[in-house]
Amino acid sequence: MTEKKILIINGPNLDMTGRREPEIYGSETLDDINAAIRTYAKALKINCDFFQSNSEGALVSKIHEVLTDYDGCILNAGAYTHYSYALYDAIRSVNKPFVEVHISNPQKREEFRRKSVIAPACVGTIAGFGKNSYLLAVSALRELL
Amino acid sequence: MTEKKILIINGPNLDMTGRREPEIYGSETLDDINAAIRTYAKALKINCDFFQSNSEGALVSKIHEVLTDYDGCILNAGAYTHYSYALYDAIRSVNKPFVEVHISNPQKREEFRRKSVIAPACVGTIAGFGKNSYLLAVSALRELL
Amino acid sequence: MTEKKILIINGPNLDMTGRREPEIYGSETLDDINAAIRTYAKALKINCDFFQSNSEGALVSKIHEVLTDYDGCILNAGAYTHYSYALYDAIRSVNKPFVEVHISNPQKREEFRRKSVIAPACVGTIAGFGKNSYLLAVSALRELL
Amino acid sequence: MTEKKILIINGPNLDMTGRREPEIYGSETLDDINAAIRTYAKALKINCDFFQSNSEGALVSKIHEVLTDYDGCILNAGAYTHYSYALYDAIRSVNKPFVEVHISNPQKREEFRRKSVIAPACVGTIAGFGKNSYLLAVSALRELL
Amino acid sequence: MTEKKILIINGPNLDMTGRREPEIYGSETLDDINAAIRTYAKALKINCDFFQSNSEGALVSKIHEVLTDYDGCILNAGAYTHYSYALYDAIRSVNKPFVEVHISNPQKREEFRRKSVIAPACVGTIAGFGKNSYLLAVSALRELL
Amino acid sequence: MTEKKILIINGPNLDMTGRREPEIYGSETLDDINAAIRTYAKALKINCDFFQSNSEGALVSKIHEVLTDYDGCILNAGAYTHYSYALYDAIRSVNKPFVEVHISNPQKREEFRRKSVIAPACVGTIAGFGKNSYLLAVSALRELL
Amino acid sequence: MTEKKILIINGPNLDMTGRREPEIYGSETLDDINAAIRTYAKALKINCDFFQSNSEGALVSKIHEVLTDYDGCILNAGAYTHYSYALYDAIRSVNKPFVEVHISNPQKREEFRRKSVIAPACVGTIAGFGKNSYLLAVSALRELL
Amino acid sequence: MTEKKILIINGPNLDMTGRREPEIYGSETLDDINAAIRTYAKALKINCDFFQSNSEGALVSKIHEVLTDYDGCILNAGAYTHYSYALYDAIRSVNKPFVEVHISNPQKREEFRRKSVIAPACVGTIAGFGKNSYLLAVSALRELL
Amino acid sequence: MTEKKILIINGPNLDMTGRREPEIYGSETLDDINAAIRTYAKALKINCDFFQSNSEGALVSKIHEVLTDYDGCILNAGAYTHYSYALYDAIRSVNKPFVEVHISNPQKREEFRRKSVIAPACVGTIAGFGKNSYLLAVSALRELL
Amino acid sequence: MTEKKILIINGPNLDMTGRREPEIYGSETLDDINAAIRTYAKALKINCDFFQSNSEGALVSKIHEVLTDYDGCILNAGAYTHYSYALYDAIRSVNKPFVEVHISNPQKREEFRRKSVIAPACVGTIAGFGKNSYLLAVSALRELL
Amino acid sequence: MTEKKILIINGPNLDMTGRREPEIYGSETLDDINAAIRTYAKALKINCDFFQSNSEGALVSKIHEVLTDYDGCILNAGAYTHYSYALYDAIRSVNKPFVEVHISNPQKREEFRRKSVIAPACVGTIAGFGKNSYLLAVSALRELL
Amino acid sequence: MTEKKILIINGPNLDMTGRREPEIYGSETLDDINAAIRTYAKALKINCDFFQSNSEGALVSKIHEVLTDYDGCILNAGAYTHYSYALYDAIRSVNKPFVEVHISNPQKREEFRRKSVIAPACVGTIAGFGKNSYLLAVSALRELL
Repeated sequence: MTEKKILIINGPNLDMTGRREPEIYGSETLDDINAAIRTYAKALKINCDFFQSNSEGALVSKIHEVLTDYDGCILNAGAYTHYSYALYDAIRSVNKPFVEVHISNPQKREEFRRKSVIAPACVGTIAGFGKNSYLLAVSALRELL
Repeated sequence: MTEKKILIINGPNLDMTGRREPEIYGSETLDDINAAIRTYAKALKINCDFFQSNSEGALVSKIHEVLTDYDGCILNAGAYTHYSYALYDAIRSVNKPFVEVHISNPQKREEFRRKSVIAPACVGTIAGFGKNSYLLAVSALRELL
Repeated sequence: MTEKKILIINGPNLDMTGRREPEIYGSETLDDINAAIRTYAKALKINCDFFQSNSEGALVSKIHEVLTDYDGCILNAGAYTHYSYALYDAIRSVNKPFVEVHISNPQKREEFRRKSVIAPACVGTIAGFGKNSYLLAVSALRELL
Repeated sequence: MTEKKILIINGPNLDMTGRREPEIYGSETLDDINAAIRTYAKALKINCDFFQSNSEGALVSKIHEVLTDYDGCILNAGAYTHYSYALYDAIRSVNKPFVEVHISNPQKREEFRRKSVIAPACVGTIAGFGKNSYLLAVSALRELL
Repeated sequence: MTEKKILIINGPNLDMTGRREPEIYGSETLDDINAAIRTYAKALKINCDFFQSNSEGALVSKIHEVLTDYDGCILNAGAYTHYSYALYDAIRSVNKPFVEVHISNPQKREEFRRKSVIAPACVGTIAGFGKNSYLLAVSALRELL
Repeated sequence: MTEKKILIINGPNLDMTGRREPEIYGSETLDDINAAIRTYAKALKINCDFFQSNSEGALVSKIHEVLTDYDGCILNAGAYTHYSYALYDAIRSVNKPFVEVHISNPQKREEFRRKSVIAPACVGTIAGFGKNSYLLAVSALRELL
Repeated sequence: MTEKKILIINGPNLDMTGRREPEIYGSETLDDINAAIRTYAKALKINCDFFQSNSEGALVSKIHEVLTDYDGCILNAGAYTHYSYALYDAIRSVNKPFVEVHISNPQKREEFRRKSVIAPACVGTIAGFGKNSYLLAVSALRELL
Repeated sequence: MTEKKILIINGPNLDMTGRREPEIYGSETLDDINAAIRTYAKALKINCDFFQSNSEGALVSKIHEVLTDYDGCILNAGAYTHYSYALYDAIRSVNKPFVEVHISNPQKREEFRRKSVIAPACVGTIAGFGKNSYLLAVSALRELL
Repeated sequence: MTEKKILIINGPNLDMTGRREPEIYGSETLDDINAAIRTYAKALKINCDFFQSNSEGALVSKIHEVLTDYDGCILNAGAYTHYSYALYDAIRSVNKPFVEVHISNPQKREEFRRKSVIAPACVGTIAGFGKNSYLLAVSALRELL
Repeated sequence: MTEKKILIINGPNLDMTGRREPEIYGSETLDDINAAIRTYAKALKINCDFFQSNSEGALVSKIHEVLTDYDGCILNAGAYTHYSYALYDAIRSVNKPFVEVHISNPQKREEFRRKSVIAPACVGTIAGFGKNSYLLAVSALRELL
Repeated sequence: MTEKKILIINGPNLDMTGRREPEIYGSETLDDINAAIRTYAKALKINCDFFQSNSEGALVSKIHEVLTDYDGCILNAGAYTHYSYALYDAIRSVNKPFVEVHISNPQKREEFRRKSVIAPACVGTIAGFGKNSYLLAVSALRELL
Repeated sequence: MTEKKILIINGPNLDMTGRREPEIYGSETLDDINAAIRTYAKALKINCDFFQSNSEGALVSKIHEVLTDYDGCILNAGAYTHYSYALYDAIRSVNKPFVEVHISNPQKREEFRRKSVIAPACVGTIAGFGKNSYLLAVSALRELL
């Protein structure tokens, strides 16, 4: 298998990871997590790019780049998961596999987190395993490529 | 009638038109569509400006410009149509005629597309005629000015 | 392009147009509107027939005639828009393009007018431009034929 | 006060009154009831016309006649009460007082009878007093004229 | 027919009638209305008692008195109409005819007024005729006694 | 058993059977189906009359005739099945067995077809067997008579 | 165990017990029931006080007394059970065990009786055993004290 | 036509048929009904096997056998009809025609019986004809084989 | 009174009582609870049998035995309480008194526990008193026998 | 500015303030709070009267007094906030500014507290600042007078 | 008390204040309002920074700065109030007091404005007092710091 | 790390995997999948046991064994995922980590599959990766042990 290139996108408030509610999101920062992903992926012969934004529009635009620049995408859309049909449309406009990821298990938290509007556009979902959710997603994506 | 000036706004993912799901959105790009609108409008003595953004906030700000710089606006808000009350408020803050436009017929697609939160702030709606939806909107707007 | 023949159908209470709530429906009668449509269509080389009925059953039967006698149909179903699944079935039983039309913008009025049960069977919708809604629909239909 | 002229309209299945479910609708026929209304109204110097139809469209058309031919109308819309927005529109298109009448009390029966879609277009409602509902409506209407 | 005795009960805020929102409730006070009821009823050989309270509990207790002291009751429960199941139970605990009355037509006002929780316990409803609603109710009640 | 007489009623759009959506409704016309019913019923010593109308009112009126002229009725109410409380009232006003019939299985189609408002007034339902649904209904009705 | 003191509170319409709907509430009066409770409780070395009111406010105030004067409370809130969040707050403001009691089984009656807004503030519920519901509640409360 | 083999499955509580609520389910036992089905089917050259279980899991497993051992299946799923998505999945996992059967008409009974979750996986439904529902289903199934 | 025989049924997960979530269910095992019930019942001259199963089908079958072998039944249906219409049907098929029991108060826990689908088939409910709920139910049942 | 006179109304259970759930409502009693309000208001040249009742009816009656005796009103309606349309009507019957106040933030508590039925009749809302909510309301009201 | 520093954030369309719908939002511009806030706060020894954006993402990012740079925050989230769970998450990720502010009273306007998704993350809410809402919020915040 | 022991549970219809709807579930049988899991787990020093049942009760009982015999559990509950609160309770009664697994992505299929009632009791969810979902779950579980 030739080397693959994937994009890891993190949405709103995930730049605060490690600094907010550690009992839910853990104490590692997003940079720590990204470093772990890079190492893990390299061992699987996968190159990773990383992107984080709090802006729904910037996320939509970045997702469009997957069409031409990446083999697949891991997306933690944060709170946008639950109402951003713009992200849903963006994923559908790109003919590449997307994996939905969450650090915590949204089904165990507030009611509004029980519905994902982006899930129907994604290959699958991995949620609830902390940082490990991303690593599992890398592994899942490799199988799909 | 003196010459009029209108703004055509396209929202999230419409920059992908022609590249995504051609069975729904057709194979012409947004530039193709805009060129056709410009030609059509010119014949009706209407000047057009064009704006596209994936960002809800940028769309809100652009809508504000209609207050002072344009006689009316044609708006395809994409997925924001269905949940952006910020766009609804923006339109209402501007005392000019807005026409809601859609390339496809939202009523024939997913359930979430059946409700438009911006419609109550617009003069009218034209949906389902592909690129032609925009041309019909130009024609409709001319009558209103 | 050879000459085309279309049917303009108006549903319940539209025979009162011009006599009821002029702030919503304008002061022109249905005959005035139909005359304007005829003139407009003739210039586009389209022949028009007109039909109005307050009876759901008569509307269903008339829609069936489109199958054999017309190239397309413009339908303002009035209040039936919001609950007549019989009209929805009738349109689907006829393999010709239908355009849904409304004089006013139903999205700006009572709650019950926000849902159209016939829209999923129509090519597209034009609403909110008064008499002009019909003329725009003629223009839209010509493109589809 | 000069003599007034009102229309009493009965909707679907009320032609079966006296022949169906007498424990709900009583044993008098619609003709019996109409005769009683005529006598009662005459004593109040009111002329009555009567109309019954099972057809929603025919009811809509008849309601339109109230605009030019009557001073007011008493309407028992039967089951159409609960879903006919066409009747609602018809009443609103006529600038005369309408009184909604029911022989039985819809609030004491099936769930679907608890909502009246025509009530918001009527001056008031009288329900649950059998034949007497009509006589009370005549009396109420006289006060309004 | 021997003379009958009925009770007219008015619920919360009806003591403000004539002083509040005259475009909805008219400019006559509750005393004016009661005087008119008394005169009207006397002509029909009916004696009337009157009771008004803003307290749900006091209304419940008064309704209980109907069991032993009155032949029937006319009840305008004001806002309690829409949520007081205690009043519903009270009416059902008394084996006498109750007529539900409203000065305005609740179906034409706020959404919450469209549902009456006491209606299923009443013989019938008269709503929307201003002061005359009460007089019609007296007339209706006489027929039932 | 003496010979019985039943009425087969078909509602809106069923006159298009054989001409519309053959993958759902088959390719036989309503006349073909009726001929098959007549033959099948004759073998069971049952006489059949047939009626089709797109008009809700005409269907209501026809159902009333069952009271005096027929021993039972097979009713395919088409789209009216899902909202016509007038048909429901009509069936209830007639003290004879009605069997609800559908060519296709409404439960497998659009959401709105999952609810039948006439079912509670019918003895039973047979749906999904194409033309054979009617024959099964004749057989079922014979057992009931 | 030293002697305990509890309060038995009955809400709206329970003063009519024995006089209303005996097939639901039995033929014993509230005084009969209270006498039985007193006897039963005395045998368990529990002193009882009794309170009945149709007024929501009076019930709230009485519940407050439990804080200082009683060891626990048995509460049949009648129809207030289903909507009085004021009672819910009152119970929560008092740090003593409350047992919710009903003579009939609310789950078997009207839809509105299926929800209890006070239950989340009570230790437990006993419903459906007629007068015996109170005796069982005394027994239950004794275990809790 | 060669001889066919079908399976008749009855779900929870149908083993009580004849012993429970005879006004709803009739007085014949399930054995009586099965004997009648066998006789009726034999005349149509169809062999029948019978299975009854109160266990959802056992029903799922039995449905799986239809894949290899039967030409079709008649299924009365009892109360599981209304919530067992496991049965729905089981039917879908088997590529054979299933006919849904009910002795009574679920649409005329409690609210919860108005929705069938298994219907979308079945060819059709027959309900409300007592024992005869099964015989009609045999006849319907024969046409499908 | 001759000696009576009752059945105590416990549903899914109640075999874990004493081992799961002791702050909700207490620390006594089901055997401890059953022993306490047996002793308590014996003093009231009642014989008890006990049954526990996690299988919905096995519970349905056991409930059927109450018809011939027991005078009444105490049923803690665990989570099935909230969706098993099969149990509801089973109870209704048996003409004996059932008392619904819960160790904790379902109304104070998750939203899904606020609705009991079996309650309408039971005489009454006792919930929230820990082990004592069963003893109170024995006492309640004795009064009913 | 001449001196103003306002009324501070507290509804059900607020007489328990300081004695109930101090983590929500603080440890100061209502008298403590009222004293602080009086001092604060006096500095702003505003005279205060105070009223507390657990009775919905008494609150309605007191609100009526604002019409003639006060310049404005601060209202903490306690649990009535969430269902008392009688209070809503009372406020609307009085043409003076009302400010809705809450000690805690209802949006952070039980679901039922998220809806205020009195808010649409009030100028504004201040919630969540403990005792200070009242002082802020005095300040807000002064600006409005 | 040492000097405090707070941030005043205004969301979408509030840059149009003074230019849009003055009957709702008043005629002062946002700069006018901010100047008034600065003056008012200075008197209370509070330093203010101001931020306005139409972009949800920019608002999220700005809220994060409160963690390190401010003692508290006043937030008027405009239309985002009603659907931006991203803002809700942002506020929760910052361990500082937030006060929700609205110029008008959302409860008196469109239905969609009745629900605030950010309220559960804020200390309290002040709404409906025009420009004064901000000043009251400054005062409230000072008490919290 | 010492060797761990986990249980892989498959629910209803998963015994049909490989034989049903291969476009959704793939063409490998459950035995194939289990073999792959065993191999994969062995490499991670994890021992696996496997269990499949169509019976809700058997699944509940098996889950109980995890308490004493396993370090964790991977659960594909099939259709029970969407309504079995009994499984939810079972998982909660066992103090070990559970990972919810699905072969397909339920969010992309029928509406009823969008809600998981067992998710709140599980550590996390992995869905949509075919057979690989199980392997990812093994990997995820290893991190948790």
